[in-house]
Amino acid sequence: MCQLLGMNSHLPASLTVSFSGFTQRGGCTDHHADGWGIAFFESEGDQPGRRARQFMDKQSAATSPIAQMLKTYPIKSHNVIAHVRKATIGAVTLENCHPFTRELWGRYWVFAHNGDLKNYQPNLHSHFHPVGSTDSERAFCWLLQELNKAHASMPSVQEMTHTLAELVPQISCYGTFNFLLSNGEALWAHATTKLQYVLRQPPFPEVQMRDEDVAVDLAKLNSPEDRQVIITTEPLTVNEPWVAMQNGELRAFVDGQSAVVKHCPPTHWVNPPVDAAAPAAA
Amino acid sequence: MCQLLGMNSHLPASLTVSFSGFTQRGGCTDHHADGWGIAFFESEGDQPGRRARQFMDKQSAATSPIAQMLKTYPIKSHNVIAHVRKATIGAVTLENCHPFTRELWGRYWVFAHNGDLKNYQPNLHSHFHPVGSTDSERAFCWLLQELNKAHASMPSVQEMTHTLAELVPQISCYGTFNFLLSNGEALWAHATTKLQYVLRQPPFPEVQMRDEDVAVDLAKLNSPEDRQVIITTEPLTVNEPWVAMQNGELRAFVDGQSAVVKHCPPTHWVNPPVDAAAPAAA
Repeated sequence: MCQLLGMNSHLPASLTVSFSGFTQRGGCTDHHADGWGIAFFESEGDQPGRRARQFMDKQSAATSPIAQMLKTYPIKSHNVIAHVRKATIGAVTLENCHPFTRELWGRYWVFAHNGDLKNYQPNLHSHFHPVGSTDSERAFCWLLQELNKAHASMPSVQEMTHTLAELVPQISCYGTFNFLLSNGEALWAHATTKLQYVLRQPPFPEVQMRDEDVAVDLAKLNSPEDRQVIITTEPLTVNEPWVAMQNGELRAFVDGQSAVVKHCPPTHWVNPPVDAAAPAAA
Repeated sequence: MCQLLGMNSHLPASLTVSFSGFTQRGGCTDHHADGWGIAFFESEGDQPGRRARQFMDKQSAATSPIAQMLKTYPIKSHNVIAHVRKATIGAVTLENCHPFTRELWGRYWVFAHNGDLKNYQPNLHSHFHPVGSTDSERAFCWLLQELNKAHASMPSVQEMTHTLAELVPQISCYGTFNFLLSNGEALWAHATTKLQYVLRQPPFPEVQMRDEDVAVDLAKLNSPEDRQVIITTEPLTVNEPWVAMQNGELRAFVDGQSAVVKHCPPTHWVNPPVDAAAPAAA
């Protein structure tokens, strides 16, 4: 099992505090020690950037020098997706580290997945091909292939969410499909089993971190104009109103708040047997 | 003008010494202070990896915390491409930082360019689209588009070099087109004006760095089995036999040595006037 962390922010914000707690789960407070990765969409002028900057390492997030550097070098972003991995399918290589990135319609797309898709071998007949050997990257490639067929150019967030809601059940019937997806403009989250989010806005509270014995006064780190959504597998703090997403829930976050919600059919096979007669992907 | 640095190595090798000297050109010994980037193809088991790990920053390479971290955290790789930028075309943004990366045939391709392509607006009708606004990224997208048309799957290095030699003159007629390209298996270098390489193999010498008052004994950093080619805009050392590439020379490096050479037509317009009637790209 892996852990996901995402942020969607109204103004460019640093994820340093949350990332610091999150990386403790990579080999320290938890058993997710098979590599980690994080991708940032920063702002370019007044606009959210279209290219993501990614960092990853095979070393545990708790001890990696790159993770250490990021804890002291705050990168202010509109959208962030991070992942610490416990390998289940696919070898422990950089090729298999989440998040995965591809270019579509002249902007980067970033994807990270938590869960297992059993016997998932989609028909990848177009131009997105996996570099590594994970079920997750295959799902990402198939999603981009089908999005590219459905839209000639970048659609609105509303339209994108609608199309995703049609595509996602064709993957989630193969197993657990909690994921985060971003194109720099919005961050989409889909839950099968475990994904929770919290809205942070004024008045910012003092929060008690769950993975470190530390309290952080968010009011000192944010201005009155700031507003962010944090999405994660397990809540990072013990005293905030985290909302658990439902099985089949697909949510688009824009400008630090929930913008669109769709309810896909709940997954039939949360843990299908390996030889389950799963339907073929379109 | 920008500076390029590449390495192709027989065994996974660290570029720390060369990168350290090279980054001095980002705002210290030279005027290339508009951001930098580096991409590493590491090994996965016995094989060169198919995914590149990239680091970049808008901050000068001489002062960037990410560059500082890389100088002390050696990443052992088969192929590396680095770039420090002096913006000429395109704003100073992360979107415009070299190297650029895309996936083709299930592996990453990494590209960095030195030079200016005047009025270069290729017909990008397929599925590689620029994210930033540089002439360099447009050239990279066009190269991948045409390579993808020319080959159904990854060709041999020999065949790839042959195809590149047909494509490159269609870009270099627009201006200066020194570039480095790698897919993790080989590193291709093409020169219009300035690109030099040196072969490092036993017996390894003590080298005197050009950008720092430092001598480095390469014998202490390498084993008898090591062999590397270093390619760069300007020689990094003062006492090695650097070889200047000729105008139109295209060279593929594999396993730390020169594997294939092609001679493209020399560029007609090394510095064409902005309103030059340049031929349209295919």
